[in-house]
Amino acid sequence: MMRYHKVPEETIKRMPQYLRALLFLRQQSTKYITSRGLSEYVLLNPPQIRKDLSYFGAFGLRGTGYEVEPLIKQIRRILKLDVEQKTVLVGAGRLGSAIARFPGFQRYGFNITDIYDNAGKRIGKKIGKIQIKDVAKLNKIKANSVKIAIIATPPETAQQIADALVKAGVTSILNLTSAYLAVPKKVRVRTVDLAMELGMLPYYT
Amino acid sequence: MMRYHKVPEETIKRMPQYLRALLFLRQQSTKYITSRGLSEYVLLNPPQIRKDLSYFGAFGLRGTGYEVEPLIKQIRRILKLDVEQKTVLVGAGRLGSAIARFPGFQRYGFNITDIYDNAGKRIGKKIGKIQIKDVAKLNKIKANSVKIAIIATPPETAQQIADALVKAGVTSILNLTSAYLAVPKKVRVRTVDLAMELGMLPYYT
Repeated sequence: MMRYHKVPEETIKRMPQYLRALLFLRQQSTKYITSRGLSEYVLLNPPQIRKDLSYFGAFGLRGTGYEVEPLIKQIRRILKLDVEQKTVLVGAGRLGSAIARFPGFQRYGFNITDIYDNAGKRIGKKIGKIQIKDVAKLNKIKANSVKIAIIATPPETAQQIADALVKAGVTSILNLTSAYLAVPKKVRVRTVDLAMELGMLPYYT
Repeated sequence: MMRYHKVPEETIKRMPQYLRALLFLRQQSTKYITSRGLSEYVLLNPPQIRKDLSYFGAFGLRGTGYEVEPLIKQIRRILKLDVEQKTVLVGAGRLGSAIARFPGFQRYGFNITDIYDNAGKRIGKKIGKIQIKDVAKLNKIKANSVKIAIIATPPETAQQIADALVKAGVTSILNLTSAYLAVPKKVRVRTVDLAMELGMLPYYT
């Protein structure tokens, strides 16, 4: 894996976009795709795409392009999505419950193994096969070596949850709240604020 | 509003990020914020921020910065988030139901007024005060002049829903599925694929 060391962070950031496009193409029974074909999905120009993919030793054949299935495998391996990724979910309200059952995550190898909430009425209940635990017991996850967490709590509690998750050894957080999370540098936070995403649409109506 | 005509699209795209940061700051009772202060939230450098905001006639005072509340109002007005934005939701499954009740949308002025689904067991039921309608009646929304839609269906049906929405006069779509949507140029699509967002985190664990 030596040769991956020099891959720019920007390229890594774009990898999930490629994977998303390739999974879609596979579903449509597409076997090969050129960099030009891919450019319609990832909104990058073909030279950029070729450069990105070349970092990982993937070279498309002129005219034929890249073979979809091996490229999916390759990107999955690079992104560590080829192994099961245990994921903890905090917040079992409406959004959290939907997230817990979201079929899309499994497609990427994510497996939500623990769900926490602070509401007495939810603790002990099950979502699918997983029993909701008291958020006060978040420190227990270290033993399970879960590194990835999703926060789907109200924004007011997101920071304290993030603090507890970091303390418990989590290094990657998907933040679905409107809060900004302060975390140590070694911890990655990816924020998706659905209201903000919707926020730019009316301008063009 | 003449002077807004020359605002670059990239600046408009960043406006919701500014708004999100300002709403968070207001919640924390912050009254003024400098471009440097804002840069910690929007991940842009202070000169870029000053330039973006100057397009809208907002100039921070040296040392004091921008006044949070008026800037929120200003950005809301520019993004047309100061008036109620009727929004239609298609897909009343788990994710859709969570979306329908998501408090974050109201903060931005979005009001989900219509919900559609194709499952007989859901049609006629209510989410909050809104009765779920048959997706076959999507053509009815034109009369209500709803321009914004959220698609939270399975990916397999997303394209046909998008086609129906466009036919019904919708010009802006928030796509929450893993599908790529082909729409006429005049229609804006914003896609949020939660699994993809999570997809880049394991690389760094």
